[in-house]
Amino acid sequence: MSYRIGSGIDFHQLVEDRDLWIGGVRIPHRKGALGHSDADVLLHAVCDALLGALALGDIGVHFPNNDDRFKDIDSKILLRECVRIITDKGYKVVNIDASLCLQEPKIKPYVPQMQEVIASICNIEIEDVSIKATTTEHMGFVGRGEGLTAQAVVLLQKV
Amino acid sequence: MSYRIGSGIDFHQLVEDRDLWIGGVRIPHRKGALGHSDADVLLHAVCDALLGALALGDIGVHFPNNDDRFKDIDSKILLRECVRIITDKGYKVVNIDASLCLQEPKIKPYVPQMQEVIASICNIEIEDVSIKATTTEHMGFVGRGEGLTAQAVVLLQKV
Amino acid sequence: MSYRIGSGIDFHQLVEDRDLWIGGVRIPHRKGALGHSDADVLLHAVCDALLGALALGDIGVHFPNNDDRFKDIDSKILLRECVRIITDKGYKVVNIDASLCLQEPKIKPYVPQMQEVIASICNIEIEDVSIKATTTEHMGFVGRGEGLTAQAVVLLQKV
Repeated sequence: MSYRIGSGIDFHQLVEDRDLWIGGVRIPHRKGALGHSDADVLLHAVCDALLGALALGDIGVHFPNNDDRFKDIDSKILLRECVRIITDKGYKVVNIDASLCLQEPKIKPYVPQMQEVIASICNIEIEDVSIKATTTEHMGFVGRGEGLTAQAVVLLQKV
Repeated sequence: MSYRIGSGIDFHQLVEDRDLWIGGVRIPHRKGALGHSDADVLLHAVCDALLGALALGDIGVHFPNNDDRFKDIDSKILLRECVRIITDKGYKVVNIDASLCLQEPKIKPYVPQMQEVIASICNIEIEDVSIKATTTEHMGFVGRGEGLTAQAVVLLQKV
Repeated sequence: MSYRIGSGIDFHQLVEDRDLWIGGVRIPHRKGALGHSDADVLLHAVCDALLGALALGDIGVHFPNNDDRFKDIDSKILLRECVRIITDKGYKVVNIDASLCLQEPKIKPYVPQMQEVIASICNIEIEDVSIKATTTEHMGFVGRGEGLTAQAVVLLQKV
């Protein structure tokens, strides 16, 4: 059984008059994430981890942020495309473990829905998708609520 | 042989009149880490990585920071509980690799003791526990000594 | 088949009158990375991930930044030494996935060359070395161009 490891990290500013999409779920909040697409920091980190495990470039290579096709795009579409790419290469996802860093809001109530979205797109079970969250204890740009970050690691297996 | 990957990240402020616990070891320093528990940033990152590998929620789900049972608690107790949980699920730890980011103090003299604490709780050998440290070259909140962070990755194996 | 996981993170300030070495490649830019060695943030993160996977200490333990032997040293020499160490321990690299965080310059044109450098030193194929890059969306010390960071994860296999 042949394994590969991948990791991804993403950053977005939090600003007014934008929706807050995290893990494919829209979360009610007074601010949203700024970006060319829907700026879903969690899905972007997962995309990068999947691509990175097979050294296929990063999300900016596959979906350039100056390409109108990806303007305001639902990041679930991007994740689906990344899963198609690694499937074509003969790999499947074993498990995903992601960590969100954001000062607010609390995302715990939305985690099961995020797991369901990601598991469904990645063709894995809900118990193979982990989404954890932490504040930065009011430190740095995340702690001041200026932005949020996500990191993800994935383990892939040759089918 | 079936593997799973996990990762964790944690942040704590450094303030006066608190002890500095890192990796289960009390380190003499003019500041300590602020938190509901003993605020051991390294053990928390390891806990999150263990839970994350099996998608069992995060440390905040298992040990809420508004629960009086965990006030000032020794994080070794939390790690022991996380190890019990993954053992019950039929997994064992293959290896742990952690990175501390802090401007000061130097933690190198304490690393062997930290490895011993973590290896003992996780039922693995000392050479299966890696603890690395770096400054952030005086940049950001870590570089200004306002706080410290730890990241950990773990590889688990189905027994 | 016996696997091990490793991770590394590194930080360097960006200052004038220094060269910018990333992934073993010199990149034209008005600033360079400050450090005792050539301050190659990407190679350092990879070194730490390799050492960390086998709990062999960190780059600061092996190549102290107060040792004149490592003053301005080409970090490719340090990576070569880390690869020698893990090879002696009976391990080989399966794959490496790295993420650079820097606001500028764009490093995409240099990625194939970086992959070639790292793959060659690590005795693996180019498609086993992933180098991704992201800005921090102008947030924090990376976003202000004060510095850059790199993270890397590696999967090792017992030969």
